[in-house]
Amino acid sequence: MNEAQQARLAMRRGEWTGPTVYKIPGYVQCNLVVLPKADAYEFLLYCQRNPRPCPLIDVTDPGDPTPRLAAPDADLRTDLPRYAVYRHGVRCDDVTDIKALWREDSVGFLIGSSLTFDDALERAGVPKSQEVWVLNTTLPTTPAGKFQGPMVVTMRWMTPAQAVIAGQLTGRFPYNHGAPIHLGDPHAIGADLDHPIYGEPVKTIPNGVMPVFWACGVTPQRVALTTKPELMITHAPGHAFITDLRADQVCIP
Amino acid sequence: MNEAQQARLAMRRGEWTGPTVYKIPGYVQCNLVVLPKADAYEFLLYCQRNPRPCPLIDVTDPGDPTPRLAAPDADLRTDLPRYAVYRHGVRCDDVTDIKALWREDSVGFLIGSSLTFDDALERAGVPKSQEVWVLNTTLPTTPAGKFQGPMVVTMRWMTPAQAVIAGQLTGRFPYNHGAPIHLGDPHAIGADLDHPIYGEPVKTIPNGVMPVFWACGVTPQRVALTTKPELMITHAPGHAFITDLRADQVCIP
Repeated sequence: MNEAQQARLAMRRGEWTGPTVYKIPGYVQCNLVVLPKADAYEFLLYCQRNPRPCPLIDVTDPGDPTPRLAAPDADLRTDLPRYAVYRHGVRCDDVTDIKALWREDSVGFLIGSSLTFDDALERAGVPKSQEVWVLNTTLPTTPAGKFQGPMVVTMRWMTPAQAVIAGQLTGRFPYNHGAPIHLGDPHAIGADLDHPIYGEPVKTIPNGVMPVFWACGVTPQRVALTTKPELMITHAPGHAFITDLRADQVCIP
Repeated sequence: MNEAQQARLAMRRGEWTGPTVYKIPGYVQCNLVVLPKADAYEFLLYCQRNPRPCPLIDVTDPGDPTPRLAAPDADLRTDLPRYAVYRHGVRCDDVTDIKALWREDSVGFLIGSSLTFDDALERAGVPKSQEVWVLNTTLPTTPAGKFQGPMVVTMRWMTPAQAVIAGQLTGRFPYNHGAPIHLGDPHAIGADLDHPIYGEPVKTIPNGVMPVFWACGVTPQRVALTTKPELMITHAPGHAFITDLRADQVCIP
């Protein structure tokens, strides 16, 4: 059993309910979106039109909770540490399994996560930043049907030299958001440092580092606030799905 | 008016009905697939599951013949030099416009083409091979609903040194099939040299060169033979859609 399988089993048993940030290095981590089949075409199209925030790693057949390409023995209903349940665009519940919510027409979308490349960054000489933030911005995404809204980003602090390495390296991971979407002034993209989706509010940026931003797979959760689908289940930010895929093997698929 | 717009206008007027191979260098060329909305979800999923042969550049809204991301003033009904019309899996007609076949529920899929990177290869020191072949293989693709079948590839002849450069360079073009899918022995992937889809039958491979193979966006046309959708319109092999996108700008999108 590989480390990803062990981690998923611990989540399935309810023994692991915390974040996956910096956990199980080397395996591709994914954001999750679950929608009814009736909404699946427009959402699939939304992902196609927005590959930076929403690079698709796997999409399940309706009703099938197994992501057959990414983790053929996994169950998306139980194998994440924490889920967020949105009804009509309102995050109304956080749960640790979604067995009772899974339907015959449920389709699971796995979207690559920047958590995947933190380990590769470290191997390339960029130590893990103390924290990874998930932030709202005012950057628009390309609409598809009813799906539309601004982009969510992750933010890491790096020295300029580290930011250059990170730009080169993450460009090799197009299925995990690719190169940075922005660097420097957070206000240029309307990044909301006062109200992070994940992480503590940011009062000041330390001397000697600059913020580096990547498009984030939490974007569909922001989009849900605008689109208000009847039912949409996602991972809780920072609590990703860990696939069997090795990050180094899929960096250029 | 840019060179791509001029080329499309010549096609729209019926003045350009020949191949686009090696034409209008620097612009992203695309394979076309047009399907009724009823088949669009499964085909979109097929592309998502097979990004090497079917990297999606743009997908139109139902009934809308304009690819708004790739070429906002183009018309997919007239702006290709030649189309192939498949009915129930049979290629029954080749035409130079599809105005009479376009329906209110038609969805156009633009799939990146390896014709895009020939110019970049030349700039990197790999001269254009005398010919580009399009060949059937026995390599399987990942099914999605009714869409399934073996992969189609392009073949170019290169010296080993050129093949190494081509591997490095085309890996930077994931939206135009990325790195080679195979090099060397054509029989290892069941490449049918006797009956090319595009190009002359290959009797012998010259000394000093090796065949290099890329996944090809003509794959959906081979898939149509198996899937037999009621109506599927594609570009004729070698006769691609020329977008406004610059190849160098989308090499890492």
